[in-house]
Amino acid sequence: MEDRSRNGLPGPLGAEGGCISIGEVLGLYGELGAESLEALTNVRQKPVELKRNQKVFSLCEGRADIFVVKEGWASLSHATSTRGQDICNVFMPGDIIGMRESFFESHDIVILSLTHCKLEKVSVDDLHALFKTNDEIRKAITSYVMVNDNITIERLRSCTHHRSEERVAHFLLEVYARFNFKGLLNSNVFSFPVTQDIVGELLGMTSVHVSRCMTALEQKKLIRKTRSSIKLLQPEEMARNTGFDRDFIYGHICLG
Amino acid sequence: MEDRSRNGLPGPLGAEGGCISIGEVLGLYGELGAESLEALTNVRQKPVELKRNQKVFSLCEGRADIFVVKEGWASLSHATSTRGQDICNVFMPGDIIGMRESFFESHDIVILSLTHCKLEKVSVDDLHALFKTNDEIRKAITSYVMVNDNITIERLRSCTHHRSEERVAHFLLEVYARFNFKGLLNSNVFSFPVTQDIVGELLGMTSVHVSRCMTALEQKKLIRKTRSSIKLLQPEEMARNTGFDRDFIYGHICLG
Repeated sequence: MEDRSRNGLPGPLGAEGGCISIGEVLGLYGELGAESLEALTNVRQKPVELKRNQKVFSLCEGRADIFVVKEGWASLSHATSTRGQDICNVFMPGDIIGMRESFFESHDIVILSLTHCKLEKVSVDDLHALFKTNDEIRKAITSYVMVNDNITIERLRSCTHHRSEERVAHFLLEVYARFNFKGLLNSNVFSFPVTQDIVGELLGMTSVHVSRCMTALEQKKLIRKTRSSIKLLQPEEMARNTGFDRDFIYGHICLG
Repeated sequence: MEDRSRNGLPGPLGAEGGCISIGEVLGLYGELGAESLEALTNVRQKPVELKRNQKVFSLCEGRADIFVVKEGWASLSHATSTRGQDICNVFMPGDIIGMRESFFESHDIVILSLTHCKLEKVSVDDLHALFKTNDEIRKAITSYVMVNDNITIERLRSCTHHRSEERVAHFLLEVYARFNFKGLLNSNVFSFPVTQDIVGELLGMTSVHVSRCMTALEQKKLIRKTRSSIKLLQPEEMARNTGFDRDFIYGHICLG
């Protein structure tokens, strides 16, 4: 199944997964010249491979580790004593896990691999050193954090203002927009190996309810679904129904 | 009623409201030396006073206006063609409305005053010019945005993982923490002139349901409530029940 989700779909993850790097990812969020890209190449990195359902606790001296996702999907929870490990986000290829958390003390994170994952562990110290000295890199990182916070803000709006079916539709549009922004799609089909349990946890619904909503969306001919992929049949209509606004998330950012 | 919410409570808003400035507010989020504070004093500003229930559309050439809240409460919606004006946040004295939106093109905002409000409209151009040239101010603004995004992340977690009663309790703890962080409280009582309608909209519940949860919290002797204020009787127990973590929101930020 992991192989399927990596290689079974037209083009994206399997094909491009190998070349996703911290420089490439940050370059989507701010212009990086040759010098900045070079500096990012010199940041200490270490490949990490996770089997499905492995947990990684990142409690690195008060600063979370940073991982670039090259292949696969992972979820993130915040590890605290006062609450369980509530999943608060999922990450796909081209995302950076722990970027925003690395700016806070005591934002310990727990990563759970939802599929087989290839990650690149990036030295927090090296990256933060560049954040301090390199304007382009600082802007790209700041933009990365703010744009990804837009996703959270949109998801909160959706979860508090929509009925369940629109909530699920909105989330699928979010995932679609995230893939698209990264240039990882050339059709309306995307890999979606996230279980209904986890979708439910992200959106505040039971997995049974998620399943019903998916079926309803299928019956309305808005989506087509296989075990590990989703095809959006009418993304524009879904966006209208849910108020999903790609520009709100990825609209131009002005960090000067 | 507006007078009561401003002056009837021990100390905070009425007493301190007069001196809340952009420099003071940003100073909470990053160290500002005399020079930076001086520079902020020179930013063009204009006092704006709103009666209760007034709407302000901020569509300033692709960049939202920025308002420091000196007195009163206001809500914020994003104005888009594809969705209604869903309220996505509320602002209290010591907050800055439109700060994060000013970094994005086409993040138009609609401000609705929930009480009589005294705002200070701050020149976006001047503030962004300082963002580009003054390190301390840049760090304070970045930290402001990231810390306030923490609030959204926490609220999303609460709304997706909690039953309604804990959701309401979590939101009251959020407001309490926001007041406390600003040094605007010296007891467990805070002004809370936000209607149950709006609390419902923020948390994805009906106002009737919000009302029931408030009553349940009162019956459990966790809060005491008047028309426009809330007293937290056992904030620690409430935090345990809801996993509310002040440090997650306001924990030290490392922008170097």
